[in-house]
Amino acid sequence: MTSYFFNDLLSTIVDRGRGIVERGRDRRPSGQNLAGLANDLLSGRGEATGIALARDLFDNYATLDSAGRTAFFRALASEFGPDPEALAAAAEAYLKEPGEATALRLHQASEPRRQELIRRLNRAPGGTAALVAMREDLLDRLPDHPDFRPVDADFSHLLSSWFNRGFLVLRRIDWSMPASTLEKIIRYEAVHEINGWDDLRRRIDPPDRRLFAFFHPALVDEPLIFVEVALTAAIPEAIGPILAEDHHPIDPAQATTAVFYSISNCQKGLRGISFGNFLIKQVVEELARAFPSLKTFVTLSPAPTFRKWVERQVADEAAGTLRAGDREVLATLEDAAWAGDPATAERARPVLLRLAAQYYLQARTDRGTPPDPVARFHLGNGARLEQLDFLGDPSPKGLGESYGLMVNYLYDPKTIERNHEAFANKGEVVASTAVKRQLRGAPEVTQAIALSA
Amino acid sequence: MTSYFFNDLLSTIVDRGRGIVERGRDRRPSGQNLAGLANDLLSGRGEATGIALARDLFDNYATLDSAGRTAFFRALASEFGPDPEALAAAAEAYLKEPGEATALRLHQASEPRRQELIRRLNRAPGGTAALVAMREDLLDRLPDHPDFRPVDADFSHLLSSWFNRGFLVLRRIDWSMPASTLEKIIRYEAVHEINGWDDLRRRIDPPDRRLFAFFHPALVDEPLIFVEVALTAAIPEAIGPILAEDHHPIDPAQATTAVFYSISNCQKGLRGISFGNFLIKQVVEELARAFPSLKTFVTLSPAPTFRKWVERQVADEAAGTLRAGDREVLATLEDAAWAGDPATAERARPVLLRLAAQYYLQARTDRGTPPDPVARFHLGNGARLEQLDFLGDPSPKGLGESYGLMVNYLYDPKTIERNHEAFANKGEVVASTAVKRQLRGAPEVTQAIALSA
Amino acid sequence: MTSYFFNDLLSTIVDRGRGIVERGRDRRPSGQNLAGLANDLLSGRGEATGIALARDLFDNYATLDSAGRTAFFRALASEFGPDPEALAAAAEAYLKEPGEATALRLHQASEPRRQELIRRLNRAPGGTAALVAMREDLLDRLPDHPDFRPVDADFSHLLSSWFNRGFLVLRRIDWSMPASTLEKIIRYEAVHEINGWDDLRRRIDPPDRRLFAFFHPALVDEPLIFVEVALTAAIPEAIGPILAEDHHPIDPAQATTAVFYSISNCQKGLRGISFGNFLIKQVVEELARAFPSLKTFVTLSPAPTFRKWVERQVADEAAGTLRAGDREVLATLEDAAWAGDPATAERARPVLLRLAAQYYLQARTDRGTPPDPVARFHLGNGARLEQLDFLGDPSPKGLGESYGLMVNYLYDPKTIERNHEAFANKGEVVASTAVKRQLRGAPEVTQAIALSA
Amino acid sequence: MTSYFFNDLLSTIVDRGRGIVERGRDRRPSGQNLAGLANDLLSGRGEATGIALARDLFDNYATLDSAGRTAFFRALASEFGPDPEALAAAAEAYLKEPGEATALRLHQASEPRRQELIRRLNRAPGGTAALVAMREDLLDRLPDHPDFRPVDADFSHLLSSWFNRGFLVLRRIDWSMPASTLEKIIRYEAVHEINGWDDLRRRIDPPDRRLFAFFHPALVDEPLIFVEVALTAAIPEAIGPILAEDHHPIDPAQATTAVFYSISNCQKGLRGISFGNFLIKQVVEELARAFPSLKTFVTLSPAPTFRKWVERQVADEAAGTLRAGDREVLATLEDAAWAGDPATAERARPVLLRLAAQYYLQARTDRGTPPDPVARFHLGNGARLEQLDFLGDPSPKGLGESYGLMVNYLYDPKTIERNHEAFANKGEVVASTAVKRQLRGAPEVTQAIALSA
Repeated sequence: MTSYFFNDLLSTIVDRGRGIVERGRDRRPSGQNLAGLANDLLSGRGEATGIALARDLFDNYATLDSAGRTAFFRALASEFGPDPEALAAAAEAYLKEPGEATALRLHQASEPRRQELIRRLNRAPGGTAALVAMREDLLDRLPDHPDFRPVDADFSHLLSSWFNRGFLVLRRIDWSMPASTLEKIIRYEAVHEINGWDDLRRRIDPPDRRLFAFFHPALVDEPLIFVEVALTAAIPEAIGPILAEDHHPIDPAQATTAVFYSISNCQKGLRGISFGNFLIKQVVEELARAFPSLKTFVTLSPAPTFRKWVERQVADEAAGTLRAGDREVLATLEDAAWAGDPATAERARPVLLRLAAQYYLQARTDRGTPPDPVARFHLGNGARLEQLDFLGDPSPKGLGESYGLMVNYLYDPKTIERNHEAFANKGEVVASTAVKRQLRGAPEVTQAIALSA
Repeated sequence: MTSYFFNDLLSTIVDRGRGIVERGRDRRPSGQNLAGLANDLLSGRGEATGIALARDLFDNYATLDSAGRTAFFRALASEFGPDPEALAAAAEAYLKEPGEATALRLHQASEPRRQELIRRLNRAPGGTAALVAMREDLLDRLPDHPDFRPVDADFSHLLSSWFNRGFLVLRRIDWSMPASTLEKIIRYEAVHEINGWDDLRRRIDPPDRRLFAFFHPALVDEPLIFVEVALTAAIPEAIGPILAEDHHPIDPAQATTAVFYSISNCQKGLRGISFGNFLIKQVVEELARAFPSLKTFVTLSPAPTFRKWVERQVADEAAGTLRAGDREVLATLEDAAWAGDPATAERARPVLLRLAAQYYLQARTDRGTPPDPVARFHLGNGARLEQLDFLGDPSPKGLGESYGLMVNYLYDPKTIERNHEAFANKGEVVASTAVKRQLRGAPEVTQAIALSA
Repeated sequence: MTSYFFNDLLSTIVDRGRGIVERGRDRRPSGQNLAGLANDLLSGRGEATGIALARDLFDNYATLDSAGRTAFFRALASEFGPDPEALAAAAEAYLKEPGEATALRLHQASEPRRQELIRRLNRAPGGTAALVAMREDLLDRLPDHPDFRPVDADFSHLLSSWFNRGFLVLRRIDWSMPASTLEKIIRYEAVHEINGWDDLRRRIDPPDRRLFAFFHPALVDEPLIFVEVALTAAIPEAIGPILAEDHHPIDPAQATTAVFYSISNCQKGLRGISFGNFLIKQVVEELARAFPSLKTFVTLSPAPTFRKWVERQVADEAAGTLRAGDREVLATLEDAAWAGDPATAERARPVLLRLAAQYYLQARTDRGTPPDPVARFHLGNGARLEQLDFLGDPSPKGLGESYGLMVNYLYDPKTIERNHEAFANKGEVVASTAVKRQLRGAPEVTQAIALSA
Repeated sequence: MTSYFFNDLLSTIVDRGRGIVERGRDRRPSGQNLAGLANDLLSGRGEATGIALARDLFDNYATLDSAGRTAFFRALASEFGPDPEALAAAAEAYLKEPGEATALRLHQASEPRRQELIRRLNRAPGGTAALVAMREDLLDRLPDHPDFRPVDADFSHLLSSWFNRGFLVLRRIDWSMPASTLEKIIRYEAVHEINGWDDLRRRIDPPDRRLFAFFHPALVDEPLIFVEVALTAAIPEAIGPILAEDHHPIDPAQATTAVFYSISNCQKGLRGISFGNFLIKQVVEELARAFPSLKTFVTLSPAPTFRKWVERQVADEAAGTLRAGDREVLATLEDAAWAGDPATAERARPVLLRLAAQYYLQARTDRGTPPDPVARFHLGNGARLEQLDFLGDPSPKGLGESYGLMVNYLYDPKTIERNHEAFANKGEVVASTAVKRQLRGAPEVTQAIALSA
């Protein structure tokens, strides 16, 4: 019951502008030397008036154009690393006398000054959100500026620490949420687009629908990641009925199955900081507690690189992945209209299901992992590949990515740890008998398939 | 207006027990090898089932006796540092080819495994509070176990990062707060003890009294630090009238002066992570905004080592700090009854005020800092030594620590930065003319005074 | 600061099902005799188990078809009035010995049993909302069942008492409100339709827009009435710019004028219970406090019966309201396209403005009140007729109702009481000089104009 | 999930001062004619500026001395009744032509003007609380001013309507409540005094203790009535163990019995408006839902007039209530020390238990009701007299009121309605066999015992 005290206190977390030192005093012309401000912030001066300086830096950053921001990141990369001399000395001291004390000094000497800079920037009101946005800019520049990677390593290190699972808050999102939050859900949905407020309502308001998100206190009402769930009477084989406008809700207390049919990351600036694993597992717990009738927790997932992989097999005469006649069948799938033609579809079914089984169970990237990124995520979480759904998504996007194929991954608390270890240590893909049975008659896949993973 | 959404969401931050993997499964007998659990948590297994493992570790830790906990910290110190071989290799690589990339790898190689362990422990429900409590145990053992210092460095590093100013929330504590929070204020007050609920009410309920505290979302309703403030018509010269039972409140809109008369840290496990500087400055801002009539922001502070310092001067014939006749006057202060005897007090006044001026303005520790810890704190924040208060605290404690002396430090936003730099860079104590005038006739203090600081 | 305790406690106001006596026990077939249940509820039995009985009655009512409900109201009208014999006796006793005691007994004897019935029904969870809905059904039947009027008098009496201004809560509605509340605003807007969520957002999210509503604790998140406000730099002459999609917000701190451009009642079952007067005046106060720059508080209001009135003057040769040439000009306004033709519009302007001045200042209904219902509302509140807006609303609806005419009523706190008394006691319409000047050249309106008011 | 919107909105219910008309304008000298203000408020002027006038009236009332207030109530009694002429006319009209329409007009004509006055006063901010306080003043004057009874009838009528069960909110009070609310609980406890904060904590913080209160939205955080509950393993026979400082809590999930051991009304101004019946029954429901193991819901109640009744039997030689030897035994109970003397106590036990059975089961007041007011309350609610507790309360107060006797009333949802009807219609006291068995050997009580009830 302590919560409402706390709730209320948090209402002040988004502080109005702070700073005991008058603001603006140090306001420099836009495009000016932010690195100078950064140095001030790291100096003794920063200790007395750090919050005002941090805010000034953010304010100045906000006015910079793209070139100015690149210049700022360049300065961060070149001027805010560790002190080379101190680091060399600490390295030598360690090598001379290895031990906890020298290791600690070496660790401290090797810490880039950027890390303390980022910590001090975080003290400004709204600092965390501003840092997440700044990292988004940085990530955009990484492909062209590989020398910024150490800068990103520092951002990533601190954001990972601050967005530790222990600080995340799970919330159900429903129709009683503020419109200002709901519009973010509409905007961030990345898997099955939400077409406006009526569509959103269909996903969160019926009794057999749920949407859960993680939030972080410092980002207030910005979701970090969310998952959409349908409560059903059986493992679904297609996305259509779940999103249908004329869906008739079932009584959630009668549902046996919870289907995770969409999971979306919201903050580009938090890329690489993984929440999905924790989110799914906590939602499984919440739902299991709320609805004892639920026995099965599965995803309904896309197979985003399946078609690309198949086309590569078709193109590579030497791959040996295809059986005789496959090419002819696959050729009939060039025209997207095939999905509406029962005869063609029925001919395609066994071929696609067999190829899908090969894709998931046998194909491997250069790194030895399954080529499908969604598979890597769920299998890495300890899920099992449960079912292949022929024409589960006959939309243009679905046909284009995977000939309409969808799959279900099963989260079974009893086997999650074992599955995870089998996958992580031995690269083993745990799959149901039904999926494995689809392999019958498939040629052996003997080599790894190179796919950017 | 987004706040009430957020408030509500935070009501769930104190999650009920979580863990997709069944609990208890790994429950080992109390006193058993927690280090084994810690290793599990750092292994691949920890990725799939980390929250349950972290909770198990905390549960086991809670059942350990004192010796068991010491053994656990010993294991942390000896077995969870960085990998020596990898670190040596990284150090050599850096020395061979200094650069951002080798420095980054060196930084990573030098990070003790403890840090990742602490991060994973933090994922458990209530993990942050449990880690703060664990560090309290650790701090208790440091004097006898200096080899645990690297362990504390890791706790301190991560807690500093997690308790970053950006994540703290300022709240006014008043009589409408939950009793469960208020009783903590009673318990944690460290400067002027709060004698029960009536005394507490006198400090927070009258219109000319304020109490502000910092909170952290992960510790919910546990204050981290708080400051008590009286709004007055002038800089006070004594604590008595402020704490008096028969105090008649003034209209806060007429007050000219805000007096910070008590500041208390609440969490032993966060020792060394400084909040006081930020707290005072933010409260100055809050009050200045709420009451435009406030012009003066001062403390009313103790002088905790003044008497010890004076007695050292008395004992040290060679010190040269005393003037002729001082010893005689000081001898009359042995009996605490002097404070009630006007004649003795009047004779003591000029001597004590002059010695106090020497104590603050001239005396220095081996490290070159003022001997008084409270002075170091406020001067380091950029405050100015404003006034010496003869017999400001005639309580037994006050007489015992400082012959009843209290002092006021002035926080003037316009000079904070300058004062801070003068103190930090040049060791200069910025003081008012009135204080400096007390030095008249004092012998020069020529040597640093050794005092544990 | 007591509020958050209270806030939290109110979260339970919508109680889950209650009733210490098992429910359903008395469940009778739908359409059955609700009057029997009502009698039970009024009996001694109702005292012990009243909440359960009240809920049963509501549950049964909900299953009744239209004829069943009519039958229930008929029973209420005929069987639940005062006891005729007791009433006659009390009347005679009063006449025999007039005094406070006999008057009190007479008052009690004349109270219909329906009133106590309604009070007991209100004890059920959700009872207030159910009674409001029940009255909506009742109001629908009044035209055909004048004998139900005494039943409505009882509903009206109690709802007026329960929806006393003292229990209403004013709230600003903005974009951070729950979608479930916002969709009600969309649905209830009665003056200028809200076309979906984007349009709603334009009305509540820009810094120079406000929407305020009254709520009642027992109806939770159901608005009772709301008003939409635009903050502007001048009294507006047309609705178009206010609703425009490409509106550029102004800084509200610079606004001089608050424009109430739409006011909508939300609950049909509360018809005749007036909130608008209180709402406008409280919003004036809120805005005046928040924005000291605001000097002018006006409406931008429709003139819903102006065209009907003009057409009646045209038809009634004897009315003497029109000047020579008016009929010709009015004939050019038959085709709605006139509003887009500058020449026609300019010819129409002086005629319509003069007729409008006559309509507001001279025309009267049989009851001696102005024919315009909106005028009666605002003038009755003490507002002044400030400005006539030619073609203020050139929409088809606006042209159809009032040849596009809109008007501004001014709420000036200094004159509200005087204006109200002039209007209430003497039927005087207080208007600005500018409006009165439009009368120049108008024939005298000598007779009252019969219009249902 | 709509609640948090609503919670937030209610935070504004205690409006800051309102009133579109400038305040103070009508401020008259204290003691001046409030009746004049009341007349203004009922006039047309009151419609335009009613809130300001209502506030003025309350402000003036607050400054009146006791005589001034009495004068105000006298004016309410004599000048604000119904209009005698109109009432006489309506009475005659009804007698001439009885019917719904004439009855309605008669009801309206008989309504005192005071009622509308009270309704308009309620519109002021804080009006409800001010009216409750005003009625407290009025109740104080009733014994000396029986002519104020009609005024009280009007207050009582409207407060009953406004404090309808449907508007009350049940809240658990625990240690996380605001201190400002908790201190009211300490102050209002009327049965077993709460000795400060530690004692309060013992009553609300242990897992096997509960305190529930009813609140009303317009009184914000003022409890109306509260009940204290202990969860136990059996029906208790004494209050001591429940209030003991060294009480060891039991696991509430194991409790079989909920004991209502104290129930206190908080608002004198709401005297006669009954909440206790609803409170007990709702708490029974809440607890039954939360703890399925609870099977028995009983009170542990005082017997406040038992000793007075016994002493009357002793004094009245003719009563025939006593058996031979009773007087001697009772004489040994004059000295309160008897309760500590086992031999005396054991001799007293059968006598007191038999007399108690007679007191509850046979004795009746002039009105035919049981003499014990607590019994009338619980039996009227449908409870059963379950157990007589010899020396259940050996405190001086307990011995003085009832020779230490306490009793348990049982609330059994299955029999509440039947018990209530037996008691209400036939005056029958439903009691357990164990209580009835105590009657054995008692003389018949043949006459009603006059006790003010």
